[in-house]
Amino acid sequence: MQHSPAMAQDDVAQIAAALLDRLRTRSPRVHCITNAVAQNFTANALLAAGCQPSMTLSAEEIAAFVGRSHALLVNLGTFDRERREAAEIAVETASQDDVPWVLDPVFVDRAPPRAAFARDLVALGPKVVRLNHAEFDALTGGEPTRAALVAYARNRKVVVGLSGETDRVTDGARLALIDNGHPLMAKVTAMGCAASALLAACLAVEPDAWRASAAALVMIGVAGELAAATAQGPGSFAVAILDALHNLDGQTIVAQARIKSEEVN
Amino acid sequence: MQHSPAMAQDDVAQIAAALLDRLRTRSPRVHCITNAVAQNFTANALLAAGCQPSMTLSAEEIAAFVGRSHALLVNLGTFDRERREAAEIAVETASQDDVPWVLDPVFVDRAPPRAAFARDLVALGPKVVRLNHAEFDALTGGEPTRAALVAYARNRKVVVGLSGETDRVTDGARLALIDNGHPLMAKVTAMGCAASALLAACLAVEPDAWRASAAALVMIGVAGELAAATAQGPGSFAVAILDALHNLDGQTIVAQARIKSEEVN
Amino acid sequence: MQHSPAMAQDDVAQIAAALLDRLRTRSPRVHCITNAVAQNFTANALLAAGCQPSMTLSAEEIAAFVGRSHALLVNLGTFDRERREAAEIAVETASQDDVPWVLDPVFVDRAPPRAAFARDLVALGPKVVRLNHAEFDALTGGEPTRAALVAYARNRKVVVGLSGETDRVTDGARLALIDNGHPLMAKVTAMGCAASALLAACLAVEPDAWRASAAALVMIGVAGELAAATAQGPGSFAVAILDALHNLDGQTIVAQARIKSEEVN
Repeated sequence: MQHSPAMAQDDVAQIAAALLDRLRTRSPRVHCITNAVAQNFTANALLAAGCQPSMTLSAEEIAAFVGRSHALLVNLGTFDRERREAAEIAVETASQDDVPWVLDPVFVDRAPPRAAFARDLVALGPKVVRLNHAEFDALTGGEPTRAALVAYARNRKVVVGLSGETDRVTDGARLALIDNGHPLMAKVTAMGCAASALLAACLAVEPDAWRASAAALVMIGVAGELAAATAQGPGSFAVAILDALHNLDGQTIVAQARIKSEEVN
Repeated sequence: MQHSPAMAQDDVAQIAAALLDRLRTRSPRVHCITNAVAQNFTANALLAAGCQPSMTLSAEEIAAFVGRSHALLVNLGTFDRERREAAEIAVETASQDDVPWVLDPVFVDRAPPRAAFARDLVALGPKVVRLNHAEFDALTGGEPTRAALVAYARNRKVVVGLSGETDRVTDGARLALIDNGHPLMAKVTAMGCAASALLAACLAVEPDAWRASAAALVMIGVAGELAAATAQGPGSFAVAILDALHNLDGQTIVAQARIKSEEVN
Repeated sequence: MQHSPAMAQDDVAQIAAALLDRLRTRSPRVHCITNAVAQNFTANALLAAGCQPSMTLSAEEIAAFVGRSHALLVNLGTFDRERREAAEIAVETASQDDVPWVLDPVFVDRAPPRAAFARDLVALGPKVVRLNHAEFDALTGGEPTRAALVAYARNRKVVVGLSGETDRVTDGARLALIDNGHPLMAKVTAMGCAASALLAACLAVEPDAWRASAAALVMIGVAGELAAATAQGPGSFAVAILDALHNLDGQTIVAQARIKSEEVN
């Protein structure tokens, strides 16, 4: 696939607008292995965006759930034996049934065994790894410089979505820089987990994982800005961002998107 | 017990108004085995209605909790080994101690082993099974026609509460059709789970399980309509329905109830 | 340490104002073993107050998390095998690494094995035990009279924080009576759990556990009053108290605090 050396901002914004429509039209099933803190908010974020969440962790049932889903999230928060066993079965099912999946290696900087398990999961072929600065460092052993992100994406054949003041998304060939979002997003637990779930949902309706990832992060970022306009603090912000996701339309995304994207050499 | 061939709408609405008062006066203890996504919202819905929720799943403790409770909910969402073991002990305790219980067979249409377990539980004597169209189909092997609902209720000696655009509640002799509610209720996770918990609470203060079930579904439906009147989307709706449950009074229930009930031949 | 026979109300209020500043400046890491119902709200309350929560229960990882934390909460709600194992490892790590910890023996009045486990934990040296009337009774075998609270604190060398219409905090030498708070706090699940987590956070920035405890309960009580001023019921109250914690300042604490504290003989 050829890309212009500097894709216009509007391209990614238009993709995000189109994917939002697809989410609402197709209502994809998204199965989430996620942490205990994030389960409720993540389910509500997926519902607000028009998707159908499921959350079981049971080793006896998870293959049936993943096999009937259109995308899978594996989030390593509050990772315990039940979640580890669930993740192993779910990823195997996803590979067999071509269900695209996202890895969110929460807090791998806090516990070395979790980082080791995350590295094993990357080898099993997620479409996307979404993480923050400290998590990238713990996963790869180095700082998330532009060169390191691109090299990691190329070598592992995975899209990397790095959250931060500016979100960065690369597949090793393209790099998107996304400036949407609001500081209150960091004051609500599970906000990043919900973003990763939304990213999984976008993979269910868009085969190009880089496009799906950039689109999802624009959507949640714009929703965050809309929510911040009315919020009085993190409590009302968490409520307002669900309303904003529900009420979001493509026109608003295109108007509010602050994205740069470029080819990488 | 004799019923008039066509009970007036006001009868069920008056019952709902009376049960709401009883919930607040008696503050029943309701133990909930429920899914990880629903635990917080369910506890808050029960508190808002004046009840005392408890949620432990521990095999060592659940008999003590159920034995001190006035009603039990067994919800099969995110069903795992811990919840299965808890459900077995809890139902045995409930049977011994005459604690009425409700079965909510969440997502039995997604996983065959869960449907089999749900069938085993129905045989153990819940007062009520509350479920949606797809779940009824998976549980019974057939569509929830009027005849099928009535036959199931009669054969299993259980009240069936079927959620949908119109909720239907039957014990095989009486059928209530409840038109209260709002589409945003389907956009908030755990709303149905909370409705089942409220239904369990009503069983704690009303021995006639059909009356308790119809009353609970009217209460939550009216609360949903009140919440929708001020909500901006599913986030603020979830907040507003807890406020509405807390502020609900019998007069409003009677004024807003949209129920038909009839004897079934 | 010498205390004046009757410390002025302003002293504790000033301490609370100072500790709030320290929470925001130092942003302590607080690891929480807490119940499934409370995890999300507790994490959001800690974030709103400026802290960094973590919540894993995994036996493989919890020592790593506690060892990197500045305080630990052990809350016995929804206590199961995983949480019991986690608590044992976490408390051992906390003792070795001098991480101060709080015990919140939720619902020990409902299950005798939980009360026994709570007594074992008290022997392992928490800085604070925070509980309500029924829980104190189940833990100690007697009513929480002033004399009983003081004797328990002295004998166990622990600060006792008893919640009620008036919160009481004693280390056996000092007693604080705190009248802040609002009845809606009892209508939202996990409110007490979040208060205990905030108390743990204050231990991370204040070595005097009595001061940390009284300050935390004043903070949450004042935030509750601010939230109640705008709330329409328990749903909006739970949202507003997170906003209030985020927006709280020392001046407001000092203006609103209703505390009496005195030396105990």
